[in-house]
Amino acid sequence: MSSPPSKKLPVAVVGATGLAGQQFLTALANHPQFEIVRLAASARSAGKKYGDAIREQSGQSRWYADGELDPRFAALPVVDSTELQVSDLAAVFTAMESDAARELEPLYARTTPVFSTASAFRYENDVPILVPGVNLEQAAPLIAEQRRARGWKGYITPNPNCTTTGLVITLRPLHQAFGVKRVFMTSMQSMSGAGRSPGVLGMDILDNVIPYISGEEKKVEIETKKILGSVAGAAIVPADMKVSCTCTRVAVMEGHTESVFVELARAASPEEVRAAWDSFGLGANGFLTRGLPSAPRRLIITHDDPFRPQPRLDRDNEAGMATTVGRLRKDDALDNGWKYMLVSHNTKMGAAKGAVLVAEALAADGLVG
Amino acid sequence: MSSPPSKKLPVAVVGATGLAGQQFLTALANHPQFEIVRLAASARSAGKKYGDAIREQSGQSRWYADGELDPRFAALPVVDSTELQVSDLAAVFTAMESDAARELEPLYARTTPVFSTASAFRYENDVPILVPGVNLEQAAPLIAEQRRARGWKGYITPNPNCTTTGLVITLRPLHQAFGVKRVFMTSMQSMSGAGRSPGVLGMDILDNVIPYISGEEKKVEIETKKILGSVAGAAIVPADMKVSCTCTRVAVMEGHTESVFVELARAASPEEVRAAWDSFGLGANGFLTRGLPSAPRRLIITHDDPFRPQPRLDRDNEAGMATTVGRLRKDDALDNGWKYMLVSHNTKMGAAKGAVLVAEALAADGLVG
Amino acid sequence: MSSPPSKKLPVAVVGATGLAGQQFLTALANHPQFEIVRLAASARSAGKKYGDAIREQSGQSRWYADGELDPRFAALPVVDSTELQVSDLAAVFTAMESDAARELEPLYARTTPVFSTASAFRYENDVPILVPGVNLEQAAPLIAEQRRARGWKGYITPNPNCTTTGLVITLRPLHQAFGVKRVFMTSMQSMSGAGRSPGVLGMDILDNVIPYISGEEKKVEIETKKILGSVAGAAIVPADMKVSCTCTRVAVMEGHTESVFVELARAASPEEVRAAWDSFGLGANGFLTRGLPSAPRRLIITHDDPFRPQPRLDRDNEAGMATTVGRLRKDDALDNGWKYMLVSHNTKMGAAKGAVLVAEALAADGLVG
Amino acid sequence: MSSPPSKKLPVAVVGATGLAGQQFLTALANHPQFEIVRLAASARSAGKKYGDAIREQSGQSRWYADGELDPRFAALPVVDSTELQVSDLAAVFTAMESDAARELEPLYARTTPVFSTASAFRYENDVPILVPGVNLEQAAPLIAEQRRARGWKGYITPNPNCTTTGLVITLRPLHQAFGVKRVFMTSMQSMSGAGRSPGVLGMDILDNVIPYISGEEKKVEIETKKILGSVAGAAIVPADMKVSCTCTRVAVMEGHTESVFVELARAASPEEVRAAWDSFGLGANGFLTRGLPSAPRRLIITHDDPFRPQPRLDRDNEAGMATTVGRLRKDDALDNGWKYMLVSHNTKMGAAKGAVLVAEALAADGLVG
Repeated sequence: MSSPPSKKLPVAVVGATGLAGQQFLTALANHPQFEIVRLAASARSAGKKYGDAIREQSGQSRWYADGELDPRFAALPVVDSTELQVSDLAAVFTAMESDAARELEPLYARTTPVFSTASAFRYENDVPILVPGVNLEQAAPLIAEQRRARGWKGYITPNPNCTTTGLVITLRPLHQAFGVKRVFMTSMQSMSGAGRSPGVLGMDILDNVIPYISGEEKKVEIETKKILGSVAGAAIVPADMKVSCTCTRVAVMEGHTESVFVELARAASPEEVRAAWDSFGLGANGFLTRGLPSAPRRLIITHDDPFRPQPRLDRDNEAGMATTVGRLRKDDALDNGWKYMLVSHNTKMGAAKGAVLVAEALAADGLVG
Repeated sequence: MSSPPSKKLPVAVVGATGLAGQQFLTALANHPQFEIVRLAASARSAGKKYGDAIREQSGQSRWYADGELDPRFAALPVVDSTELQVSDLAAVFTAMESDAARELEPLYARTTPVFSTASAFRYENDVPILVPGVNLEQAAPLIAEQRRARGWKGYITPNPNCTTTGLVITLRPLHQAFGVKRVFMTSMQSMSGAGRSPGVLGMDILDNVIPYISGEEKKVEIETKKILGSVAGAAIVPADMKVSCTCTRVAVMEGHTESVFVELARAASPEEVRAAWDSFGLGANGFLTRGLPSAPRRLIITHDDPFRPQPRLDRDNEAGMATTVGRLRKDDALDNGWKYMLVSHNTKMGAAKGAVLVAEALAADGLVG
Repeated sequence: MSSPPSKKLPVAVVGATGLAGQQFLTALANHPQFEIVRLAASARSAGKKYGDAIREQSGQSRWYADGELDPRFAALPVVDSTELQVSDLAAVFTAMESDAARELEPLYARTTPVFSTASAFRYENDVPILVPGVNLEQAAPLIAEQRRARGWKGYITPNPNCTTTGLVITLRPLHQAFGVKRVFMTSMQSMSGAGRSPGVLGMDILDNVIPYISGEEKKVEIETKKILGSVAGAAIVPADMKVSCTCTRVAVMEGHTESVFVELARAASPEEVRAAWDSFGLGANGFLTRGLPSAPRRLIITHDDPFRPQPRLDRDNEAGMATTVGRLRKDDALDNGWKYMLVSHNTKMGAAKGAVLVAEALAADGLVG
Repeated sequence: MSSPPSKKLPVAVVGATGLAGQQFLTALANHPQFEIVRLAASARSAGKKYGDAIREQSGQSRWYADGELDPRFAALPVVDSTELQVSDLAAVFTAMESDAARELEPLYARTTPVFSTASAFRYENDVPILVPGVNLEQAAPLIAEQRRARGWKGYITPNPNCTTTGLVITLRPLHQAFGVKRVFMTSMQSMSGAGRSPGVLGMDILDNVIPYISGEEKKVEIETKKILGSVAGAAIVPADMKVSCTCTRVAVMEGHTESVFVELARAASPEEVRAAWDSFGLGANGFLTRGLPSAPRRLIITHDDPFRPQPRLDRDNEAGMATTVGRLRKDDALDNGWKYMLVSHNTKMGAAKGAVLVAEALAADGLVG
């Protein structure tokens, strides 16, 4: 860290020792705009070097994210997240349990933008749940409202639940072009979505499907309507659609698979549906034309091979930042009905890396730094 | 086989060396009413003793069904299925590929009832697809019609596809009590449903979901409406409902899991839905009161624990003959909407053992032997 | 529990809420000799009915053992294990963490025999590590010594580590017939061996092998020599052999697989090796002739099919109480060398059910009750 | 393909449609020295464009190797391998079944070097089994002998079995420094080693270990001694050591794990063993100093973390070209005994990419092109 002062925007990662926090480190390693200058975690890790904080007495490493731990991060001291100073930072990326987030994120937001993977503030009226390319237009008015009503200089913008992400990315272009009226979704979620504390036991998931993920369905139903909603004044009006979910867990490492049945307001041909997906984010003013560092080349990749998408083959498309769709079929049980399958990387676009991409977009809009 | 002549009804199993055929052997071992006296398979196995026909040169056994191979079956010679004599038999249980079934089952049916796991005749107008406890009332009139129109003394009654079985068992009591209007189902099917030739490769299914099973969805949609339909004269009028399916494969050994969203014609309380399931097959004249040897004590087992049903924990309930249901919730995206999960054993109630139970019921009705 | 007083021997299970404790409940349900009259666990569960103690607020059951929880056990109150009265009991079966066992088992042993799955006392000079059919002759002299030296009326006899069990069962007949000089063993252990707290995460074991199990190799090496050793006066002289182990974990639910290379003191033919295994425990005075309720019909099942043993196919042989062996081959890299594979059920013969079988044998010898 | 004539050496891949052949395409895509100009396969694929030859009627792709199929390869016509012209090529990379290799490889070798993954010629006296960095000194004298005795202008140099590769890479530095006298190895091999025809069924490997791989153990035993042997005149004298193997299959996608017990001729300290591994291929004249395009930076990566190596975490080290070693321990059951675990990527260094690296080395020595 004896290098000349960086021109990059200084940021902190809170909850840095956990799995989601580690994914922030991976998403921000060698980032062209942001530079991690502070790492925070619970009191137990505070005071240690980060590299030591994630090593067990047995010598076992607890680094679980992709690739090797960046040695510069290993050398950073871990700060107690309740004592973290953020007023000189451009942004804080948080990966905390919901209770801790509820307490600490508002403290950070007094001075600094907070990009959060926690659900603590997702359902507040003045907090947008931001998904890259989907609803960033909700950011500016709601951030203004947060600042006004709460007296903050910063703000809080959470990610959605990782299961919501792929769903809203595929629904948004359909909603825009044809109107979405009803959605029935069954997820087959990966184990990484449950984290490691306690996480999913091998004994419970091998040769099995777990038919329930506590709280998940409600989150997806509410978040989907909020994200696809519209801004009226300083608040979001949820989209006028019905969303019904069943969320399950399967023996997959990474990548959530979702089976979707959707009723549209207007008739569409298969070619029109595909065109809506294939062009999503492209075109003049499209999200993908902004040249953001973590953006994929395509938000949605569509497959004709009926055996796709598969989580193992498609989760890493576009470095985990694309949602892959396939098995598009008319659904005769619904008016203007369609069904399809999607795969979305729950710990990349669906978590830390998605939050970083949101920060990049807001930075380009002058809302960060 | 030098024991005194059995009083049991003599039967044959065709396709006996394959996985589904082996499951017939397991289902019929020590059966109180039926006794296997002949085993048939393709020309390649013909002439060998059954025990030798399923052993490889390397010494590797190709017995894949539950438990050990009955030594009496091991000693039976395998007959070429194109040369099998059946006129002296009470029933033939067939587990053949569809092409072979289309050719051979009518030959057997000239003289003898054929209980089939093949799809070859499922969609013929005069052929009922029988599920124990669900639609056995379709048997007598359609068998009469087969005999009349085709000039047979026997008949053909196929099983449904294994994915249809659990679905219709859970829908039937709902349809009877409240009327089923629409069904959206996503399956997570086990590997055993694909058999062994070629079967699902470990490399394809580990850490993965396969989003497509060729032909499966159409089968489930058509079969469900036919099974839940009514007999008008000598034909079945499919039920007036809409059924839409997405069928996937997961890394589970046995037991199909299904996520179901259903629209009923009439309002129901959760207690009424549960009562319809819990009482299914019970009560005066109920299917379960007939004392059939392979029948479970309950057709449907309902769980309140939100983490059930799970395929590994619930597939073997009632020796694989019960369908286990859980996660019953109101579905506000449908009028009188409900959602639930089910687990059904695809190679027991959903295949050979289910066919044996059908044969037991028809025998009790005087239609066998 | 209003039934007339049982003639069975009253016993307690300590650590009853954990996975190993539940397996004691399964092993003792409907036992012809022993009747569970008390259940003990940590203070957290004390005072609740057992059925409530293992149910979560969400409604999720934490009953993980085979079959359904016996309703009589569900109704028993859970006692704090530090307050458990045992002086009126015939035996105590314990399934505790090692620290708790070290503290509590001696208290129980003052008055009552303790059959333990914990490692706390395994390596004490006067404590035999008992394996059914293998070294029960060590019981009487060492129990006498415990009583003498420690002033107890009862005693402590632990199980070995679950990985030791299958190894010593297959080595004992070889040692007796030909002398075992050296053993090289690599295990592929199932997930259930790690229990549930914290247990093996699905994310860590899917598509993977974990090459290390803390402390396991040392245990197997020491226990094997002690179990195969001889009693000299009041102590055990470990067998004069070398044992070297590498213990790994694989994505298997139950059943430990072990690859063994063994050097014998004397030459043997393959037929002689097989005969030693096949006859183990049989013959006049053989362990299997004693008619003990939990004993298998055979201690060792030998396979010629080179694709056996497999943990999924062979772990439940003889209700999990047989060790299955296969792939017997000469090993030319050792003098009188042999190699083979074994599968042993780690949570049946290798844990609670094995301990119950030991108790049955000692009861028959007048050492219980 | 309208680009200016390449300066690269033109090569063919035979057996190009199979899994191993596809891996050659991946290993040779964008290769700086070699350019694939011809693809050959069985008569069934001949005449089609490669992209069509690996697509099913259903639309399903049969491209299984890493990354996307290079569009230039997709456009190449597939030639019948019995009619392939090779006299104008610098090298032929073959991935055929053993029978086809035995017939066709000698025809290609008349004019052209053949780098083969097949076992057909591995055990011939004048054929070296080449492993990068291990025994390339065997190449020149044996190639000269092949040319002399068989009258070829080219030659055949096969890869070893994929299980041999990691073993000999870790043994070679030990043998050189301390002498290897005896090896006991138990493998836990991945599913990809079995290929796709028929491959390992998910039903057979999930929740299981398969204790046998036909022919594998003999191959590893013989190949290890040949590879570690010395050249005497025009033949290889196998190393004077004993090698004993048990080969098993586990539910792992890629990467073979091996548990090794080894007896050395001379005493060594742990630091000396590690130094032998860590320096392997480095130093003046070391294999890794030659700057070959497919070479890793290190042949062996050694871990202190006792939980490593793991196949999922370590198979892709150095793009699958490094062997990862850990759990080094003294083994007191052997004189100068050691035990360790290794992970080696069976379809990269252990197959096509390893063969390409051999070709690069021989090209640098003037034996190709």
